[in-house]
Amino acid sequence: MSVKIPSKYIENAVEQLSSLPGIGKRTALRLVLQLLNRTDQEINQFTASFLEMKQHVRKCESCGNISDTLICSICSDEKRDHTIICVVEDIRDVLAIETTESFKGIYHVLGGIISPMDGIGPSDLNIQSLVDKTISGDVTEVIFALSPTMEGDTTNFYLYKKLNDKPIIITSLSRGVAVGTELQYADEITLSRSLLQRQPFKV
Amino acid sequence: MSVKIPSKYIENAVEQLSSLPGIGKRTALRLVLQLLNRTDQEINQFTASFLEMKQHVRKCESCGNISDTLICSICSDEKRDHTIICVVEDIRDVLAIETTESFKGIYHVLGGIISPMDGIGPSDLNIQSLVDKTISGDVTEVIFALSPTMEGDTTNFYLYKKLNDKPIIITSLSRGVAVGTELQYADEITLSRSLLQRQPFKV
Repeated sequence: MSVKIPSKYIENAVEQLSSLPGIGKRTALRLVLQLLNRTDQEINQFTASFLEMKQHVRKCESCGNISDTLICSICSDEKRDHTIICVVEDIRDVLAIETTESFKGIYHVLGGIISPMDGIGPSDLNIQSLVDKTISGDVTEVIFALSPTMEGDTTNFYLYKKLNDKPIIITSLSRGVAVGTELQYADEITLSRSLLQRQPFKV
Repeated sequence: MSVKIPSKYIENAVEQLSSLPGIGKRTALRLVLQLLNRTDQEINQFTASFLEMKQHVRKCESCGNISDTLICSICSDEKRDHTIICVVEDIRDVLAIETTESFKGIYHVLGGIISPMDGIGPSDLNIQSLVDKTISGDVTEVIFALSPTMEGDTTNFYLYKKLNDKPIIITSLSRGVAVGTELQYADEITLSRSLLQRQPFKV
């Protein structure tokens, strides 16, 4: 923004909001002016929500998922299958998989993926506790459910090297043409992969 | 979002952020998770910026623009021409016009426009103080710089009826084809208006 906002307080609030990913200065100003029109009480509720979240939200000691309690609601659910662990990058992936209602095991949240470009190495991730879990013998299968990207594949490979001598099955999400898309628009890597990994046809 | 977020604090923060215009639940969750990764100090700075803004920012007593002081920096600038008042809807319009660097008068911020659909009538706007200013005789021109919409035109008409017996010139922003656009893509109302209001050609 080339013109100075005539209030250093508003400028500061715009600065803070635009520090969030995907929020530019212009959008931030629009949001800040909207906030300015709210009552004191509403602003207090707005800011308190972030302070309380920071104060109370913790990581589940078992899986690394976010939780209000020591152990998250999924890990403490006796009805779920604790022998199958689905490894994901972050909580949004947990929510995405939970939405499908087709997984009844538990999760292990890495808290990121290996990305040398961003300076994130294996030691920055929640990997050791995953390895520890596979030693006990209670776990029978680990599912790699990371994004099908270069970083995801690198992380899969690293995890595989750490886990392949353990008494478990290691699987990964199937990759192939997405359901509901037209074949002609599938990219060639996906298409060739879904050919190589073709499945017995069932009716 | 069909799946319950496993933390009522995060849910609350998502709720608060998505109350801002243009921020959906999914975006809000992404932003909230990013905030969660910040330090306590950063979160405090984030929330303090909004609290301080709400506490300190006021409306300029002269023009209604936002300001940290009783009279805003534009109204208190002796170098500006206080005989010409540009009437705008809100502070973003002030910033937009200031960016052009082609206006040296002062502003009058209505704080909205007449919009019966949204329940905003003349009495909700900062109109009386504009009328008062034109009585003193110090003001020579009032420029209507509202958006060229139905609501903007309604407000212009209302203001005109209030001001046309005062000893001032009333002008409004010219409307016509936008600079840099191709004529064939101009809408017909704009095009016909820019024909009717054609200007002497100057080189």
